[in-house]
Amino acid sequence: MAKEITARDEDYSQWYNDIVKKAGLASNSAVRGCMVIKPNGFAIWENMQSQLDKRFKETGHVNASFPLLIPKSFLSKEAEHVEGFAKECAVVTHHRLMNDPNGTGVVVDPSAKLEEELIIRPTSETIIWNTYRDWINSYRDLPLLINQWCNVMRWEMRTRLFLRTSEFLWQEGHTAHASSQEAEEETRMIQDIYAEFAEEYMAMPVIKGVKTANERFAGAIDTYTIEALMQDGKALQAGTSHFLGQNFAKAFDVKFLDENQKSQHVWASSWGVSTRLIGGLIMTHSDDDGLVLPPKLAPLQVVIVPIPKPDPVIDEVAEKIMAALKEKGISVKYDMDKKKRPGFKFAEYEMRGIPVRVGIGKRDLEKGQVEIARRDTKEKSAQPVDGIADYIEQLLEDIQNNLFQRALDFRNERITKVDSMEDFKSVLEEKGGFLSAHWDGTTETEKKIKELTKATIRCIPLDAEVEEGQCVLTGKPSQQRVLFAKAY
Amino acid sequence: MAKEITARDEDYSQWYNDIVKKAGLASNSAVRGCMVIKPNGFAIWENMQSQLDKRFKETGHVNASFPLLIPKSFLSKEAEHVEGFAKECAVVTHHRLMNDPNGTGVVVDPSAKLEEELIIRPTSETIIWNTYRDWINSYRDLPLLINQWCNVMRWEMRTRLFLRTSEFLWQEGHTAHASSQEAEEETRMIQDIYAEFAEEYMAMPVIKGVKTANERFAGAIDTYTIEALMQDGKALQAGTSHFLGQNFAKAFDVKFLDENQKSQHVWASSWGVSTRLIGGLIMTHSDDDGLVLPPKLAPLQVVIVPIPKPDPVIDEVAEKIMAALKEKGISVKYDMDKKKRPGFKFAEYEMRGIPVRVGIGKRDLEKGQVEIARRDTKEKSAQPVDGIADYIEQLLEDIQNNLFQRALDFRNERITKVDSMEDFKSVLEEKGGFLSAHWDGTTETEKKIKELTKATIRCIPLDAEVEEGQCVLTGKPSQQRVLFAKAY
Repeated sequence: MAKEITARDEDYSQWYNDIVKKAGLASNSAVRGCMVIKPNGFAIWENMQSQLDKRFKETGHVNASFPLLIPKSFLSKEAEHVEGFAKECAVVTHHRLMNDPNGTGVVVDPSAKLEEELIIRPTSETIIWNTYRDWINSYRDLPLLINQWCNVMRWEMRTRLFLRTSEFLWQEGHTAHASSQEAEEETRMIQDIYAEFAEEYMAMPVIKGVKTANERFAGAIDTYTIEALMQDGKALQAGTSHFLGQNFAKAFDVKFLDENQKSQHVWASSWGVSTRLIGGLIMTHSDDDGLVLPPKLAPLQVVIVPIPKPDPVIDEVAEKIMAALKEKGISVKYDMDKKKRPGFKFAEYEMRGIPVRVGIGKRDLEKGQVEIARRDTKEKSAQPVDGIADYIEQLLEDIQNNLFQRALDFRNERITKVDSMEDFKSVLEEKGGFLSAHWDGTTETEKKIKELTKATIRCIPLDAEVEEGQCVLTGKPSQQRVLFAKAY
Repeated sequence: MAKEITARDEDYSQWYNDIVKKAGLASNSAVRGCMVIKPNGFAIWENMQSQLDKRFKETGHVNASFPLLIPKSFLSKEAEHVEGFAKECAVVTHHRLMNDPNGTGVVVDPSAKLEEELIIRPTSETIIWNTYRDWINSYRDLPLLINQWCNVMRWEMRTRLFLRTSEFLWQEGHTAHASSQEAEEETRMIQDIYAEFAEEYMAMPVIKGVKTANERFAGAIDTYTIEALMQDGKALQAGTSHFLGQNFAKAFDVKFLDENQKSQHVWASSWGVSTRLIGGLIMTHSDDDGLVLPPKLAPLQVVIVPIPKPDPVIDEVAEKIMAALKEKGISVKYDMDKKKRPGFKFAEYEMRGIPVRVGIGKRDLEKGQVEIARRDTKEKSAQPVDGIADYIEQLLEDIQNNLFQRALDFRNERITKVDSMEDFKSVLEEKGGFLSAHWDGTTETEKKIKELTKATIRCIPLDAEVEEGQCVLTGKPSQQRVLFAKAY
C-alpha cells in the first residue's frame, strides 16, 4: 500500500496529492476548485475547531452567524478592500431556474434577475460591519468579540487540496473596540493563540511576525501572521490577525458614544485560520509511508491489531487495553477484520497516520508482552502488558514532543542569513527555507526581488534584532532583517 | 422591559418577532430573507448541534464537507427532485467583478461568465450522490453513514426569522446501503433520534408520522417526519428523514457489487434538521415576558443577582454557589454590574429565558437564605444556602420536565377528532391544533381540503389505529385517521 505513494524526493507535489488521496482526507469535486473534505480529513478539522473554539471562548469571544451573500455595493465601501477581494469571486445574479422551453433540462429564468448582484463572501468584514452599525451605540456595547465558523469562496485559478481551494472552511473573528490600543492588543493576543495552537497541537513551529504593506490584508493597518516551513523548504502562511484601525467603521459609519458622550468611530480587528491548516499539518510531519499525525489532533490515536487474527485470548487482552486507554481519554480502535492480514493493516494505519499501533500476538502474550509501533519514528518494541496504558499515554506525549522538535530543528536549520543577491539566489535554490536578509522597506524592492527569485517577504519577525545593514538588493540602509521565502 | 413585548393574545406573530429581537437571538440582514444569528441565538444552536452530533456519532455516522455549489445540470438528473428544488434558488453565473468603466463602483465582468451556471445548494443529494459514485464499489464500502453541518439556500418569498429564511443552517445526513430494508431502518432510526432530541432536550412533544405523497421530499419514496404544535395552534414540521429508495443511485449511476458479485444500485436515506428548530423552541415555551428555555439547551442555566448590588458578604456567597454549581456542570453567571438595578436585571434575564435566578440579599442571608426564581412558572421561594447547589440541580430537572409536560398537555388537548367538514372548519378556526380525520388517500382530496381550509395533512401518525371510516370531504372509505393542521 505504501508503495502507492510517490516519494518526496521524486515529486513533492505528487507526494502531497497522494497522501491526501490515499489517507482519505479530501478529493476534488465536480465543481472546479471546490473540494470534498472526506471523513478522515474532516475529523482532523473537527479536532482543530474544538481546540480553537475553546481558546476563543476562554478569551471572551462568542460565536454567531452572518449571511453567506454580500450585496455587491458593500465591497466598494472600503477602498482597499474592494481591490483585494472584488476581483475573483462567485457572483449570484438570478434567483430562479425554469424548465428549458427548448429542451429537457433547466435554464436560468431571465425574469428572475436580481436588482443588485450578490457575492458569495470571500471574507465577511463588509456584511459584519454593516451589521455592527445597528449593534453599537455606546462604549457599553464594546468590546464586541464575535467569531463565526463558516465557508467562504474566492475564485482561485490554480487550486491545491486544502492549501488553496475556491471554497474553504474557516473561522473569522471580527471584534470592535473603544480604543486603538485595545484593538491592537486583541489582534496580537489572537496571533499568540494561533501560534500556541500551531505549536502545541499541530506540533508545527511558527514564526510570529508582521506583514509588509504589500502583503497586508486589504483594508488593514497591520497584518500579524504566523509562518510555518514545509518539508520542501517553502513557507506556509498559517494564520493572520488584522488590526483594521477605523477603516471599516468609517466605511460603514459605525460610531459609539464614549464615556464623555463624544461620538467616535469604532476600532476593529479581524482574524482567521482555515482548512489550509490541514495542508500545513500534512506537509510538516508526513513521510513516504503516508500521513503522520500529532497525537493531540489525531482522530484515532491508537489502533490495536490482532496477530494474525482475532482470537478469544487476544480479544480479551485487547478489550482490557481499550478500556484502560478510554479511561484516560485516549481514542482507540480494535481492528477485528478477519479478511485483511496484519501486514496489510499495518500499512493502512501507517498511511492514515495513526500515532501508535499495538500488535497483539499469542507468542508475545506468553511472555506477557505486546508489540508497540510508533508512527513518527517507525520504531517497534515489545512492552509488558502490565501498565501498557500508562506506557502508551507517555508515548503519545513523546510522539507529540518529538514531532515538534523534529520540525523545529528542520525549520531552524533552514533560516539562513544572506547578505547579497547572489547568496540569496543560491541559498533559495539549493537549500530553500527562510532567507533572513536586509531590506530597504520599499514595496518596489520587495516586488523586484519577487520578480527575480519568486521569493516574497513572509514577515518582519516580531523578535527581530535591531541590526544596521544594507538592503540585499539596493544596498540602501536597513535596521533589521526580514524573512523571505518562496511560499504556498 | 417586558412591557416591550407584544402579548400573544394581541398579535402572535408580532410577539414572536419581539422575542427574537429582544432576547437577542437573530435579526434581519441587508440581504433579503437572510438572517444574522446573534450570539444568544447561536449559543442555542451550538447546544443543539452538540447533542445531535453526539447521537449521530454514537450511531456510527461521521461528518464530512461537500461543496456549496452544485452544477445546474445535476439538479435535472432526478426528475422529481428538479421540480422540487430547481425553482427558487440562488444562481451563480459569473466569477469576477471589475471596476465600473462608467462609474465608481464594481460591476460584473461580462467576460467571466461561467460555462455552466452553479446553484447554491438547496440540499445536497445531487452533489453527494455524484461523489458517492467514486466512493462505492463493493458491499464492503457499505453502509456509508455521512452527515454534514452546513448552510443551504432556498429563495423564499415570505420569510420569518428561524422559521423560514432563504439561507439557513442545518445538518444533512446522506447514507448509502446495500439493501432496501437497511436504508429504511436507518431512516426510521433517525426519525427516532430526532423525536427523542425534540422531547428530551427541547421539551417539545412531537408526533412521529409519515408524509403523504403530496408532502413528500422531492425524490423520496417515503418521508418520515416529526410534527410539533405551537402555542397558536399551528403545526411545525421539525425534522424529516427520507427513504430515497434507489432514485438517486439510479440518477447518478451508483452501483455496488454485492456478496454474490452481482451489480446493484445502492439504497439511500437523507435527513435533516435546521435552525428552524430554534423557532419551534421559542414558540413552544415562551410567554409574554420573553423567552423560556429548557435547561438542557439553555446556554446559561443560572444567573445570580446581588440585591441591591455587589458587596463583599454577598460576593462571597455568590462565589461559593458558583463553584458548587460549576462542579455539577451547571452554567452560571454572577451579574456584578453596578449600574443596573435588580429589577432591571430580573426583567432582562426573564426576557432571555434563563431558567433559574438566584437573588442574594443581606436580609435573606441573615436567615441563611437566598431567593430562587424559576423562569417557567415565575414562582419565587426562599431557600437555605446550605445545599443550594443540589436544590438548583433538582430544580433544573423539574423545570425541564414541567416544560415538557405543559407542552404535552397543551398539545394533547388540541388533537381533535372531526368527522365532517363543518366540524373540521369550526374546530380549525375556533380551537386550532391537529384535526384527526379520515381521508380517502388521494392527493386530489388533500389539495381540495387545503383550498377550503388552508389546513394540510401534517402526517399519517405511525401509531394510528386501524379504524373504518369515511373521508371527511368525499365520504369515501378510509382505514385510518390522519392529522391535519395549519402549519408554519
